[in-house]
Amino acid sequence: MAVYTEVTDEDLAQFMSAYDLGQVLSLKGIAEGVENSNYLLRTQGGTFILTLYEKRVNEADLPFFLNLMEHLAARGLVCPQPVKARDGQALGRIAGRPAVLVTFLEGMSVRRPSAAHCEMVGEALAHLHGAGADFPMRRDNSLSVPGWAALYEGAHGRADEITQGLSSLIEREVASLSEVWPRDLPQGIIHADLFPDNVFFLGGHLSGLIDFYFACTDAFAYDAAICLNAWCFEPDASFNVTKGRAFLAGYARVRPLSEAEIAAFPVLARGAALRFLLTRLVDWLNVPTGAMVRPKDPMEYVKKLRFHQHVTSARDYGWLA
Amino acid sequence: MAVYTEVTDEDLAQFMSAYDLGQVLSLKGIAEGVENSNYLLRTQGGTFILTLYEKRVNEADLPFFLNLMEHLAARGLVCPQPVKARDGQALGRIAGRPAVLVTFLEGMSVRRPSAAHCEMVGEALAHLHGAGADFPMRRDNSLSVPGWAALYEGAHGRADEITQGLSSLIEREVASLSEVWPRDLPQGIIHADLFPDNVFFLGGHLSGLIDFYFACTDAFAYDAAICLNAWCFEPDASFNVTKGRAFLAGYARVRPLSEAEIAAFPVLARGAALRFLLTRLVDWLNVPTGAMVRPKDPMEYVKKLRFHQHVTSARDYGWLA
Repeated sequence: MAVYTEVTDEDLAQFMSAYDLGQVLSLKGIAEGVENSNYLLRTQGGTFILTLYEKRVNEADLPFFLNLMEHLAARGLVCPQPVKARDGQALGRIAGRPAVLVTFLEGMSVRRPSAAHCEMVGEALAHLHGAGADFPMRRDNSLSVPGWAALYEGAHGRADEITQGLSSLIEREVASLSEVWPRDLPQGIIHADLFPDNVFFLGGHLSGLIDFYFACTDAFAYDAAICLNAWCFEPDASFNVTKGRAFLAGYARVRPLSEAEIAAFPVLARGAALRFLLTRLVDWLNVPTGAMVRPKDPMEYVKKLRFHQHVTSARDYGWLA
Repeated sequence: MAVYTEVTDEDLAQFMSAYDLGQVLSLKGIAEGVENSNYLLRTQGGTFILTLYEKRVNEADLPFFLNLMEHLAARGLVCPQPVKARDGQALGRIAGRPAVLVTFLEGMSVRRPSAAHCEMVGEALAHLHGAGADFPMRRDNSLSVPGWAALYEGAHGRADEITQGLSSLIEREVASLSEVWPRDLPQGIIHADLFPDNVFFLGGHLSGLIDFYFACTDAFAYDAAICLNAWCFEPDASFNVTKGRAFLAGYARVRPLSEAEIAAFPVLARGAALRFLLTRLVDWLNVPTGAMVRPKDPMEYVKKLRFHQHVTSARDYGWLA
C-alpha cells in the first residue's frame, strides 16, 4: 500500500498545467511501491503513473533515477519513462513533494514465480546490466557492506525481539562478510531490488521492469544474488534449485559470468540476504502508528541467510557450468 | 485506502476465465472505497473496477446493489455497471470473496466543493430519486433511527474518550430524534452515502456517481440531509449557507420538496449528522491493529450535530421558497 500523500483535484490541476496531456480523466491512488506515493492517472493524452517521492528518497538522487530510466529505455529495456513538462523538465512538485509522471506499463507481477519466470528474469537482469554499461552517472550503494553497520543500529539492539539469537547472528554476519566481501568483480548499474513485485509479465512473456529507486553502481553478480534470493525460494523459505538453475542459466546466456563472479556467488547471496534482513528488521521495529503499510517479515530473510551459510559453491544454487 | 484482500495473478486468471474480456493487461489495487477491496483492471476488452466484498457487506444484499446500479443506468444515471460473465451472472467469487466487475467511470472527486458543485450534486441526487422510483426491490435502512441504539453499543460507553460529554450528547439525541422523527415522508431508493468521494466531475460537469453499497429504501429528504451534511460545511465545520442554498435549489429544481419535507429538514439533518457520528465513533474506537485504514474523525460530525441543534427551520440551510 502506498498513498502517503493525498493529491487533491486542485493540486493535480496545478501540476498538470505544466504538461500538454489534455484533460485529466481520472486519478486513483494505487497500492504499488513501498517508498513513495503512486497514482494511476488517465488523461486524454494517455495513461501514466504519478509518483510523489516521500521522505525516504533523497531528492538529490532523483536525476540519477530519472536519467537512468530514460537511458535504459533508449537501449530497448521496457521500463517506465519519465514524461517531460513543456519546460523540458521531468521533475516537478505536487502537494509539497517532488513528483514525476512516468509512462504506464501493461503487465502483471506474479505471486508464485515458475522456473520459466526465473529464467526470463535472469535474462532481463543481464540485459539491464548491458543496457546500463554506458550510463554516465554513478550512485554508490548505501545498502551494501559499508552501510550495514549503520543500518543495524536502526534496530537499537532489539533484533532478539524477532527471534532469539538474531542479534548475534547479524553481528557475526556483518563482521565475517565484511572480511570476505569481493571487491574486484565487474561493476556497473544494478537494479538492486528486482523482486517479483517489480517485474511484469503479459501473455507468458516478461513485459517490463519497474521501480528503479534502489538502482546504484555495484557488482553485477550482487544484483543477480539479490534476484536469486527474491525469486528462487519457495514460500516456506526452502530453496528451489530448479528455479536457481533457470535463473542463472537465463542470466549467463545474455551476460556470461566470470570465474570470479561464480566463486563469489555464495558470499554475495549471503550478503544479499543480510541486506534485506536488515532493512526489514528496521522497518518491522519502526512501523509508525497510523502508517498504512504492513511491513514485510524479516524472518523470511533469516531463513534464507541460514540456507546460504551452508552453501559451499555456486553449484548448490544450480550453477552447472 | 482499501485493499483488504490480495488478488494474485492465479486468482485473477481463474476469475476472468468466466468472462469474454480478452487478455488481462494490468491490475492495480486502488485506494477507493472504505468497505471493500477495489482494483483497477485493464483488459483488452476495456477498463473495469474489480470489487471484492469484505465482511462488512452482507452477501444477501449484493443482488439489491447490483440490480440497482443496472436499473439506474438504464434510466440515464451515470454509475458503474455490473459486467456479466458468460453465464449471465454478475456476481462471482475471487480469493474466497464475493466479487464483481463493474465498468470504469472517468472523472475525479473534488476535495473542496464549490457552490456550483453542490448545485450539481443536488440535481443528480434528485435524478437518482426519480430513476429509482420503479425499482422493484426494497432494502431497509439499517443505519436510521431503529439502528442507532445498537450502533451506539458498538462504542461500549467509550464515547467520552473522544470528547468529554459525548456520551450524554449522543444518548439525548438518540432519544429525542426517535420521538420527533418524521414517518410519513415520500420514500424510495436513496444513495445514503453521497459524499464528495462518491461523485465524479469532468470538465466542470458532474460525470457520475459511485459506491451504492449503502443504498436502501428510505425518505428522499433524509438522503438530501445526508448530502447537505457532506457537501455544505467548510473544513472547520462551519456551515456555508451559499452552498446549502445551491444544493437545495439544485435538488428542488428536479424534484420539488413538499411542505412536510421542508418542515422536517432540520430534524433529518440532525439525524444524518448523528448517523455519521455514530459509525465514525465506532470505527474510531475499533480500528484493528494492522488495518491499513485511517478512520475518519468523529469530531467533524459532533460539530455538525451541534450546528443542527440550533437550526430552527430549513431557511437556516438556505431554503428560500
